[in-house]
Amino acid sequence: MKVAILGYGNLGKGVESAIRQNADMELVAFFTRRDPESLKTQTPGVPVYNVKDIAAHKDEIDILILCGGSATDLPEQTPEYAKYVNVIDSFDTHARIPEHFANVDKVAKENGKVALISCGWDPGMFSLNRLYANCILPEGNDYTFWGKGVSQGHSDAIRRVEGVKNGKQYTIPVDSALESVRNGENPELTTRQKHTRECFVVAEDGADKAKIEETIKNMPNYFSDYDTTVNFISEEELMANHSGIPHGGFVFRTGVTGINKEHKHVIEYSLKLDSNPEFTASVICAYARAVVRMQKEGLTGCKTVFDVAPAYLSPLSADEIRAHLL
Amino acid sequence: MKVAILGYGNLGKGVESAIRQNADMELVAFFTRRDPESLKTQTPGVPVYNVKDIAAHKDEIDILILCGGSATDLPEQTPEYAKYVNVIDSFDTHARIPEHFANVDKVAKENGKVALISCGWDPGMFSLNRLYANCILPEGNDYTFWGKGVSQGHSDAIRRVEGVKNGKQYTIPVDSALESVRNGENPELTTRQKHTRECFVVAEDGADKAKIEETIKNMPNYFSDYDTTVNFISEEELMANHSGIPHGGFVFRTGVTGINKEHKHVIEYSLKLDSNPEFTASVICAYARAVVRMQKEGLTGCKTVFDVAPAYLSPLSADEIRAHLL
Repeated sequence: MKVAILGYGNLGKGVESAIRQNADMELVAFFTRRDPESLKTQTPGVPVYNVKDIAAHKDEIDILILCGGSATDLPEQTPEYAKYVNVIDSFDTHARIPEHFANVDKVAKENGKVALISCGWDPGMFSLNRLYANCILPEGNDYTFWGKGVSQGHSDAIRRVEGVKNGKQYTIPVDSALESVRNGENPELTTRQKHTRECFVVAEDGADKAKIEETIKNMPNYFSDYDTTVNFISEEELMANHSGIPHGGFVFRTGVTGINKEHKHVIEYSLKLDSNPEFTASVICAYARAVVRMQKEGLTGCKTVFDVAPAYLSPLSADEIRAHLL
Repeated sequence: MKVAILGYGNLGKGVESAIRQNADMELVAFFTRRDPESLKTQTPGVPVYNVKDIAAHKDEIDILILCGGSATDLPEQTPEYAKYVNVIDSFDTHARIPEHFANVDKVAKENGKVALISCGWDPGMFSLNRLYANCILPEGNDYTFWGKGVSQGHSDAIRRVEGVKNGKQYTIPVDSALESVRNGENPELTTRQKHTRECFVVAEDGADKAKIEETIKNMPNYFSDYDTTVNFISEEELMANHSGIPHGGFVFRTGVTGINKEHKHVIEYSLKLDSNPEFTASVICAYARAVVRMQKEGLTGCKTVFDVAPAYLSPLSADEIRAHLL
């Protein structure tokens, strides 16, 4: 299976290493909007092309993995490149998924390609678990918690505060809320009761730390609805202890069964990830395999994780997975 | 969707109540090997027929849910009734799944039906989670723990011991083993380190309790490889506190990613179930919906949970699940 990568940020680098863990996949090209000469990858033998040349290389590629951002890159790129090759993206702007789906579906169908959008863990594996659990327990409640992990958006917000040199923000689920859900108590939880936010901030020399802390804690949308902790640390400490990109979270479905709805059930799915982009890349690689297979079987159009039978994800044969994993 | 039930034990009763929680499903018939007159169901308006009359009623049924046992019922019933109608079973003898699949697949294909085997939570949801997690993290370790829950086989084994009037056995995962796996320590665990077994035993009047306890604890295959606790209680206490059929468990995949495999990840799926048969029935009902849809689309043959795209399980449209669950 010949795989190409567009975009060489954290996600593109994650895909590069994930491909090495899948023996049936071969990385055949990188595409970039930068000068191809400037891109120093971890896989020197693989050519780097300018993104404008994708059409010229389409016959060398079974699938193009799009590693751009959801705000401006993917809404343009996914429908554009589905003209030439099978594509997969991690589009994560939940509210705009129907629109993105429609745009990509049209192009993919017209060109006989399969495109899979919104792949990763949320959207992705968390969505799948919400769907399965809702179908199994039609009467019940859903809970999703995120963390402990780094929120890029909140870290960016901290860094925009006057007097802040650098910063990192962790989203942390509240243990007592997790326990209450896990015990089947079906709590009604406010935003504040579900997550806390912990900030590690490097202040500029001479900055007013009290004012920075107050500004962060009262920032609407980002922090004001949460119990937020602000820790001032040195740049060295930030680099040494907070340079990773861990994340994770929990998806719960609690529900009832029985003639008198007398029995309670709790379904829980959780992820604890040292590297958010590398895990996302690993999910994408498994679904890239599925996309290529589905297109070979004659399917076309836009798909999501909901449309993919799990057997398509595995390098093993149907006989093998039935014998060893069922 | 017109659904019929064959077999009215715990699982059949669970399916009867689960159908009420799915507005697009209608229970149209019970089938039994007993005298139909003798079957007192919770749904008096629905007819009870002898199992011999299934062929005569085939046009009234979209799917027949087989609620018999895996030892002798299902190997006969699933291929037999796939001649007439779509069927679904919970065949759980892992080692014999390939053989059962082949038998059912042949008949279902010859007769244009879809049959789904081995549905429930293990095999079923646990298998699915093993598959997904193995595809996402190709380099890693799998761990499955069962419980806390009632093992029917081990409870039966206790009741066969001389001097035992009644008994119930709980399989309990060892907390420290769960924690070690959850922390990504990749422990190598013996049988004894993974689960303990707790027995509640009602002794016959005048029975030798010390001998009963020794016999249970040393029973090969069932108890001798485990740390087993034996509690003697009264019949009243057994009925009052141990008449439920709870179960559950945990499926973990721990693995690594990164150019130098430097990042660890933990995927965990767990179930906490007040009623094992009712939850199994709830999974079966969701997959029954998928089976009927797949057959209407022209598919035939034997399927497992691995072959079913998740969207087929939901009563919602593809647009709705993309908009609300992705």
